[in-house]
Amino acid sequence: MSQPKYLTGDKAGLEEFLAKFDVFLFDCDGVLWSGDHLFPKVAETIEMLRSKGKQLVFVTNNSTKSRADYKKKFDKMGIPCNVDEVFGSSYSAAVYIACILKLPAPKNKVFVLGETGIEQELNVEGVPYICGTDPAFRRDIEPEDFTDIANGSALDPDVGIVLSGLDFHLNYLKMATAFQYLQRGAIFLATNIDSTLPMAHSLFPGAGSAGAGLAKAFGKEPLSLGKPSQAMMDAVEGKFHFDRSRTCMVGDRMNTDIQFGIEGKLGGTLAVLTGVSKKEDFLAEGAETVPMAYVDQLGDLLG
Amino acid sequence: MSQPKYLTGDKAGLEEFLAKFDVFLFDCDGVLWSGDHLFPKVAETIEMLRSKGKQLVFVTNNSTKSRADYKKKFDKMGIPCNVDEVFGSSYSAAVYIACILKLPAPKNKVFVLGETGIEQELNVEGVPYICGTDPAFRRDIEPEDFTDIANGSALDPDVGIVLSGLDFHLNYLKMATAFQYLQRGAIFLATNIDSTLPMAHSLFPGAGSAGAGLAKAFGKEPLSLGKPSQAMMDAVEGKFHFDRSRTCMVGDRMNTDIQFGIEGKLGGTLAVLTGVSKKEDFLAEGAETVPMAYVDQLGDLLG
Repeated sequence: MSQPKYLTGDKAGLEEFLAKFDVFLFDCDGVLWSGDHLFPKVAETIEMLRSKGKQLVFVTNNSTKSRADYKKKFDKMGIPCNVDEVFGSSYSAAVYIACILKLPAPKNKVFVLGETGIEQELNVEGVPYICGTDPAFRRDIEPEDFTDIANGSALDPDVGIVLSGLDFHLNYLKMATAFQYLQRGAIFLATNIDSTLPMAHSLFPGAGSAGAGLAKAFGKEPLSLGKPSQAMMDAVEGKFHFDRSRTCMVGDRMNTDIQFGIEGKLGGTLAVLTGVSKKEDFLAEGAETVPMAYVDQLGDLLG
Repeated sequence: MSQPKYLTGDKAGLEEFLAKFDVFLFDCDGVLWSGDHLFPKVAETIEMLRSKGKQLVFVTNNSTKSRADYKKKFDKMGIPCNVDEVFGSSYSAAVYIACILKLPAPKNKVFVLGETGIEQELNVEGVPYICGTDPAFRRDIEPEDFTDIANGSALDPDVGIVLSGLDFHLNYLKMATAFQYLQRGAIFLATNIDSTLPMAHSLFPGAGSAGAGLAKAFGKEPLSLGKPSQAMMDAVEGKFHFDRSRTCMVGDRMNTDIQFGIEGKLGGTLAVLTGVSKKEDFLAEGAETVPMAYVDQLGDLLG
């Protein structure tokens, strides 16, 4: 594998690199910002890419937030962005269901284990769903529920998909109902399978952990619609219909972002050194995942 | 491996076999009964073994029921039995904690994900616990809970063990709290890790499935105190102090019951053909798990 090209300060190299692509997919945390700290010249870099006519997509695994919620974060950071450019894993799942799975209505109804972010995105794509934040499912399981779930009288015959995301209102009734749909042939999807959720300077159970009980009972893992799953790449493509050979993934993590771009057979990958991976990680002899090029920070694309 | 001895109708063989053991461990479902159907001459067989001075232990994975609950099932079936002879996985966990782990008080407190069966058994063994059926944990997680769990102010400093069983009132608050205890070094135990629970002629999420979310977040599986885990055998031994070489496991399943006895280096194993495994399973060339002897049904031990 050839060495990645170092582009910081290389004006000719930068121009040549940017000319190769029409579309840029961005990871957010570690690339644009770290928590609430914005990296230098990010807004200007985004503007420069737009002025060259590049299409931009911001790709994130967070499933509890809708794209509208994300848009607020961009506004707060002073980064110009349209809601349509944000691609979260909830939206990824909605697009995958609407544009790729395309189950014939009315059998395309989704049983949702998750919060309002998922519901908002399913609404946008016109996908029918039940459960989610419905108070009817936010209660203890009762003895008669076992019978009604088992014999199907508590089930909606139109449910063809179970979608599991981060659900702060997870309970046994929802799990038992979802498990019954799976046993009856529903397709098993997850917004993402991150095992933990960083909150309050500690770790909490993540989306993957909320769906793990269901996966254990069913004996099969869900198809994940978050990075590094290629189902997310398919969903991005399903929405934007871009030319993969003219698309570049920009990220800070080799084993998620850069791997996501390489496995997706994108035209290129660009690493930034403001996040998790260090240049030693991909410059080392025998490195597993190597980007096409790298810069010290995103703002260096300005030249 | 030698062929198992067929003892049905072999009076001399039966006498010789029974004389080898002082203790018999019984699986229940598939051996004594199937659901609510009692197999022939079970009560008489149990009486015969008692009259010969044998010690009997009934070993089951069900964690929601206490031994007192089980005793009622034996009464209903007309099988003479003492509460002390029943060994469920909740009790197994309680004995393991009290007699084997023996964490020094007060740091031996258990955070329970489960129902009243577990609480009753911990009470019997004098093990302190929190959560379980406590209504304070049967509520939604609130924003301030994240901070209080992360900084430890919502935690009990004496909790040294997280015990996960089948919990029909599982929620995110309990999972997040349990996960925080694990991150702070608590020992991770499970009553059992059965993936499903047969109910109402269908399958529901089992004890293993309820604890799977926690295992996914933590990145490690719990130590299971149910069959075929040898930790359950250690717990049975911790309670009864029997001589393994003079003990026989009786069961219908090769890969749980008989395996449980063989791995536990018991003096013998006896298969009955009234449950899951068929004689072809262990008589076949190259069979993985082979009992020492077998009978068509438990009542055949009467000769």
